Amino acid sequence: MSQTFDLDAMLSAARRATRMLADCNPGEKNRALAAVADGLVARGAEIMAENARDMAEGQAAGLSPALLDRLRLDETRVAAMAEGVRQVVALPDPVGRIDGMTRRPNGLLVGRMRVPIGVIGMIYEARPNVTVDAAALCIKAGDAVILRGGREALHSNLVLTEVVRGGLVQAGLPPDAVQSIPDPDRQHVLRLIAAEGRIDAVIPRGGHELIRAIVQHARVPVIKHYQGICHVYVDRAADLDMAERIVFNAKVQRPGVCNAMETLLVHRDVAEAFLPRMLKKLSEAKVEIRGCAETCRLYPSAKPAKDGDFGCEFLDLIVAVRVVDGFEAARDHIHSYGSGHTEAIVTRDHATAQRFVREIDASSVMVNASTRFADGFEYGLGAEIGISTDRLHARGPMGVEELTTQKWVVYGEGQVRE
Amino acid sequence: MSQTFDLDAMLSAARRATRMLADCNPGEKNRALAAVADGLVARGAEIMAENARDMAEGQAAGLSPALLDRLRLDETRVAAMAEGVRQVVALPDPVGRIDGMTRRPNGLLVGRMRVPIGVIGMIYEARPNVTVDAAALCIKAGDAVILRGGREALHSNLVLTEVVRGGLVQAGLPPDAVQSIPDPDRQHVLRLIAAEGRIDAVIPRGGHELIRAIVQHARVPVIKHYQGICHVYVDRAADLDMAERIVFNAKVQRPGVCNAMETLLVHRDVAEAFLPRMLKKLSEAKVEIRGCAETCRLYPSAKPAKDGDFGCEFLDLIVAVRVVDGFEAARDHIHSYGSGHTEAIVTRDHATAQRFVREIDASSVMVNASTRFADGFEYGLGAEIGISTDRLHARGPMGVEELTTQKWVVYGEGQVRE
Repeated sequence: MSQTFDLDAMLSAARRATRMLADCNPGEKNRALAAVADGLVARGAEIMAENARDMAEGQAAGLSPALLDRLRLDETRVAAMAEGVRQVVALPDPVGRIDGMTRRPNGLLVGRMRVPIGVIGMIYEARPNVTVDAAALCIKAGDAVILRGGREALHSNLVLTEVVRGGLVQAGLPPDAVQSIPDPDRQHVLRLIAAEGRIDAVIPRGGHELIRAIVQHARVPVIKHYQGICHVYVDRAADLDMAERIVFNAKVQRPGVCNAMETLLVHRDVAEAFLPRMLKKLSEAKVEIRGCAETCRLYPSAKPAKDGDFGCEFLDLIVAVRVVDGFEAARDHIHSYGSGHTEAIVTRDHATAQRFVREIDASSVMVNASTRFADGFEYGLGAEIGISTDRLHARGPMGVEELTTQKWVVYGEGQVRE
Repeated sequence: MSQTFDLDAMLSAARRATRMLADCNPGEKNRALAAVADGLVARGAEIMAENARDMAEGQAAGLSPALLDRLRLDETRVAAMAEGVRQVVALPDPVGRIDGMTRRPNGLLVGRMRVPIGVIGMIYEARPNVTVDAAALCIKAGDAVILRGGREALHSNLVLTEVVRGGLVQAGLPPDAVQSIPDPDRQHVLRLIAAEGRIDAVIPRGGHELIRAIVQHARVPVIKHYQGICHVYVDRAADLDMAERIVFNAKVQRPGVCNAMETLLVHRDVAEAFLPRMLKKLSEAKVEIRGCAETCRLYPSAKPAKDGDFGCEFLDLIVAVRVVDGFEAARDHIHSYGSGHTEAIVTRDHATAQRFVREIDASSVMVNASTRFADGFEYGLGAEIGISTDRLHARGPMGVEELTTQKWVVYGEGQVRE
């Protein structure tokens, strides 16, 4: 699969592809996506063979069992990727839709048309399914994408890219709408994110270090997919049975993802009634408890929390726990230690719920629901390319529509300005 | 007006102000804006005295008459600034509006609430009215703003900032929502645009060099307000009388602004019928014509266009003219030389008009209307902080709504994820 490659040529080919793709109608794009889904199934053996090379190299390099599991493709996972692409086919196509067309006093018709962003740079880590998800969403949005996945998934990503390009060719669309950088050398990432005017947006998904480095060196707009340091605040007026279900789900159901709870905040007035039973249940599920002094008093088998436990993205069966004096203390803790990803309150009190929704600054704010719902599919976007922790353009789960931009459309009858 | 100042303290104060401003209801913000408008009128003499200092320094430094005119404030201009602020009062307040609240299959209510972006850095040049416009729009949107105007308008900008802050104080809102950098040293701009996590967006409005420098050094998201290299394409099927009115208006009505036409493209089939009369009319209005070979043949008093005339933002009574072979040639010329700001076609042909709207990649595409309409007020936004030539977050005229972002709001009844 190794290829000679020229980033400049890649960028020029991507730009040419956008001109063709922007003008495709929804049917053409959907035929290409259907061909991609068929190709994934038909070429499953080839995909798994390339993935086996990555797995062998990963084992030799001593990757952790968790990373190796993320990397691994089998028939079920390949079928799931194909099914994901078919779901993208079924989504509404935002491109060309004109919103808010209104007639101005001088008779001009003015509205905003959704159009592709252009060339997207997608930088991500271990899981090869991101290659297919990102490609499918970009094709649907009419964007060209340059993919740069993790070094450990290189062979898998390259064969998946070939399958996607095959689907584009079959449908008569430009294959260069989807390209992968075949060389894991980091200098190519640095050149990609400095390609002002040639890349319209970079979407980095991954660890803290990756994103820091990209922000430092980017000369093109970046939509950061940063860490999730999510809190659940159990208010004085919480239904404690509901709180127990939500906290347990937010921590345990899938601890390794960005919308899992990392810190539990509990109102002092209910700490004694709530914490011992809650922490016992979490402990039974093998969750390690790191508590403030009051938490440790109420639940002596908790470890004392250290500096850095609050504000840490554990991505593991570990939870930091703090007893707070009230709503303001919870809010200030969240704004000091949170990452602006997803924050939840459990309460029966209407006014406190509304204050939480209004005053907490995060991409998702939730009342009486598990943080695990912060997800494009759960929100009805159909699929997501990731969860933006940035404030501009897209905030929270990003779907097809967030991969588009707009242009103003003005229809006149000869109007001139006075 | 000279102040000691500490950029770090300024940024912290701005962040604190956002927390208060984000929670204000529309009435409180509008009372502050009304107080700002009253203050501008009441303190007109003081404002003009500070402006006179800038004018004197500008004359001594040899500023051009055009720049001095931009800089000058008189009673009429101060009254116009106050009137502009009152118009912002009358705009709908986007903050807190929830769009698209829908019920998911599991019963969760999910919607998107508009919220302030946070702390905005606004970097601009000569005209002091931008200080007041930007401050008023940011207050309305619930954003704090750090203003950095041009060195030549320093005294004017500082007194205007004081007046705005006075209005905030009168209404009980935090004055640090609006701050100006009192020191023209460029190092402060460089520190401002590197203040990751402390500035949420930088909006640079100004010349090519200013914006290049900001893109090079920014570590925070930038919404560029770049140059306008706008084209009018007179199609084979144009109504030539209409084309004459539109071209004349787009070039002559106000040549020094970004939505003025810089290049005229004419279909070969109508060049002979159209160009001589059009260029004569433009010449009579003192417009200098720089034409392609065919243009010079049809209108011999045109100067031959040189390299660089196509793609130049003249901002003056100069126009580049080119005869093209058809729609595709016009489109390719626009994509090669344009800046993606505003592009117009004059045609009676429906299919060509629709192709132009679909295929031309610019923040505004217009059919049978003057490019001069690309403006927030003309589009119904009520006021604008500028015209974004970026593709992400905001594209084209930016009003109050574009100074906000969103957060997802989720109301549950104890739902957990399976």
